[in-house]
Amino acid sequence: MALKLNDIYTRGFISGADFDSIAPEVESACAKIRDKSGAGSDFLGWVDLPVRYREDPVAVEELAQIKKAAEKIRSTCDIFVVIGIGGSYLGARAAIEFIRSQQYNLLSGDGPQIYFAGNSLSTFDTANLLKICSDESKNVCVNVISKSGKTTEPAVAFRLFRDLLERRYGEDGARERIFVTTDRARGKLLELAREKGYQTFVVPDDVGGRYSVLTPVGLLPIAVAGIDIDAMLDGAAKAREDALSPDSDAVKYAAIRNLLLRSGKSIEILATYESRMAMIAEWWKQLYGESEGKDGKGLFPASVIFSTDLHSLGQYIQQGTRNIFETVLYIKDSAPDLPIPADPGDVDGLSFLEGNPLEFISRNAFLATILAHYEGGVPNIVLTLDAADEYNLGYLFYFFEYACAVSGYLLGVNPFDQPGVEAYKNNMYALLGMPGAENEALRQTLLKRLESANLF
Amino acid sequence: MALKLNDIYTRGFISGADFDSIAPEVESACAKIRDKSGAGSDFLGWVDLPVRYREDPVAVEELAQIKKAAEKIRSTCDIFVVIGIGGSYLGARAAIEFIRSQQYNLLSGDGPQIYFAGNSLSTFDTANLLKICSDESKNVCVNVISKSGKTTEPAVAFRLFRDLLERRYGEDGARERIFVTTDRARGKLLELAREKGYQTFVVPDDVGGRYSVLTPVGLLPIAVAGIDIDAMLDGAAKAREDALSPDSDAVKYAAIRNLLLRSGKSIEILATYESRMAMIAEWWKQLYGESEGKDGKGLFPASVIFSTDLHSLGQYIQQGTRNIFETVLYIKDSAPDLPIPADPGDVDGLSFLEGNPLEFISRNAFLATILAHYEGGVPNIVLTLDAADEYNLGYLFYFFEYACAVSGYLLGVNPFDQPGVEAYKNNMYALLGMPGAENEALRQTLLKRLESANLF
Repeated sequence: MALKLNDIYTRGFISGADFDSIAPEVESACAKIRDKSGAGSDFLGWVDLPVRYREDPVAVEELAQIKKAAEKIRSTCDIFVVIGIGGSYLGARAAIEFIRSQQYNLLSGDGPQIYFAGNSLSTFDTANLLKICSDESKNVCVNVISKSGKTTEPAVAFRLFRDLLERRYGEDGARERIFVTTDRARGKLLELAREKGYQTFVVPDDVGGRYSVLTPVGLLPIAVAGIDIDAMLDGAAKAREDALSPDSDAVKYAAIRNLLLRSGKSIEILATYESRMAMIAEWWKQLYGESEGKDGKGLFPASVIFSTDLHSLGQYIQQGTRNIFETVLYIKDSAPDLPIPADPGDVDGLSFLEGNPLEFISRNAFLATILAHYEGGVPNIVLTLDAADEYNLGYLFYFFEYACAVSGYLLGVNPFDQPGVEAYKNNMYALLGMPGAENEALRQTLLKRLESANLF
Repeated sequence: MALKLNDIYTRGFISGADFDSIAPEVESACAKIRDKSGAGSDFLGWVDLPVRYREDPVAVEELAQIKKAAEKIRSTCDIFVVIGIGGSYLGARAAIEFIRSQQYNLLSGDGPQIYFAGNSLSTFDTANLLKICSDESKNVCVNVISKSGKTTEPAVAFRLFRDLLERRYGEDGARERIFVTTDRARGKLLELAREKGYQTFVVPDDVGGRYSVLTPVGLLPIAVAGIDIDAMLDGAAKAREDALSPDSDAVKYAAIRNLLLRSGKSIEILATYESRMAMIAEWWKQLYGESEGKDGKGLFPASVIFSTDLHSLGQYIQQGTRNIFETVLYIKDSAPDLPIPADPGDVDGLSFLEGNPLEFISRNAFLATILAHYEGGVPNIVLTLDAADEYNLGYLFYFFEYACAVSGYLLGVNPFDQPGVEAYKNNMYALLGMPGAENEALRQTLLKRLESANLF
């Protein structure tokens, strides 16, 4: 097993009797996934993805195309811009930072620099990226990822970057540099791609955005970063096997977090020990927050990176409001040896550590913190991951996806919809003046509400 | 006023009567700061900092030394490594990213590249930074920031970078490249600096780490980034004047968040609209989390960046557990004009926006979101900041600091201590085998507890 769950530091907060009492619900939640009988069951395509990429000829061919396109981009591009928001960028960015580091664009490496665009409406960020791309000696390629092609943020970014590419390289040159990941059969973005001859990849109908990292949505940008996507899929396949087994840690994780919620905890903090996992935490927050935060329910998902944040949120976790629990995700393998240098003056009083690897301190910080926080009244679910490699990453992605589906059903919600995301969008389109009588009527209502607010 | 608070979207959650009822407590909290009569009043040095840097000759001279050192570093160094953790790096990093962008090291600019070290125990991150610094054509300088000189993370990083500098440049060369920010009078780090001839700066005794951004702790690295620290101090001075005035928005912010806490809200989400503010949010989380998270109390501080996270935590905020409120921090000035390009095919259906600046969409997303979330049952405190410049940043830092002190006293805690941070440290030192009978006894106890846990 690449990942192991240890629940010893939840003792005293939940008991064996709690597990027994929730067991029938857990069985029913798992059955909903198995039988495709639960709410949102049209979106269970992610369950078998790792197997499909090995057995289904269409999927096998798709994977080959992804690798071929990635190889082309790697060998010809200097800057690769990934345009997408939410589930259309978080998984890829999480994988690239985890395998290559947060500073991957600053560390010399093979392959192009990779930037993520279309995930905000910031003029500042967009202008900065356009400036980076304005160096005409750099060959720029773009992957636009949007199921509908109509989401505002990526749509605007695609307008800007298509414009840049067509002006710099002409229509023919742009054709070689634009890769479109969108719906299989519908939409004007697909029509445009066909008309212009852009290479396309499919966002499957039965996989929601936040579950899409192991589809072309995530796999193409990840492969462009030189990451072994086969190993990731192998890890995910193993996670699938383990998740579906009777002694499933993914199911156990779902059960524990629901028991802690029922016991009165309202915030789950994902704690990692490496900045390379910061975006994995962001991906996890979307996965759980968007799957469960509805009908007035759900644990609030937060994250910290230790030991960094022991000097920030550590005080709160140790002694603040006792409505939190931690899920600690720790990488077990010993990192490359970086010994603590000698200092004859022992300025810091740490000379007793000289010659020990830095990893020795980090591991003991991890153990020390679990014991301190648990003693401070914070349940700790401990997840240990074998190594910081592709196989383990694929395992981790699938583990959290499966656990999330089970957890959502245990909570009594549809883990696959996101009805609340429309509220601000409707307001925004109306305020922007999108044509349509309904928009206009809403616009008038909103303007009236804003007038009295006097925000500007 | 650089910053304005609008509380219209807290109506229905808290009332005028609530304000009246808390007013005596608010007055008493403010008096504790004014009279230095509250818990932790030895740590109120930050209150008058902006004035001291204008009026106190010692402080004026210190400021001149900071600027001189920054100029030297800017004109001679290619890579500037800032070693510090918690309050010893968050403020500086927040300022640099806010003024220069998250990607400041990738955007060509004047002055050295700036990296932050000693804020984790990650071998991966440390080795990557050493690799970046291993290019012998780059001139590397270091600023180590540590009051005691004994905090593990910066201490280990300083060992590594001092070693690198002494080996590459010799003792004399290292002397020119090491800048030490530490206690005024005590400690082995100060002794070392005096012995070796490193230039030193003072961490004041009466300013805690999380309140130290406007001391040499923050000001030196910020100045090295080419940021106008005088303008920051001017902004902070204006914030001080406003905070101490009868109609103080900082005091009002403190009152509102405590009223929302008492009304049953347990999580405060700081929402911004620019990635350049991500580290300001991290700085804010330390400030509030560490000041208030004690005695089993405190709002849990979380953060999001919109519109990015509307596609991640947006669902939860709109429809999840109703125990949250948002503090929305929005920059009012119109960003440089970036017009939406035309697309004759109108692939995304957004052609009605053609020619409008991107900022127009962003501003309407902000308004749309406030209305949607408020209607969804989430109180919104709205803070509008005039511009993304040094003056406004200085104002913002001081605003939050002052509000935090008032808020902590309203909550009934000492806003200036952090007793809970010791718990994991004591465990860690024991597990690492730090000499001493107490450590050894604790070590035996902890090892016994860990043995049965079987984590590895």
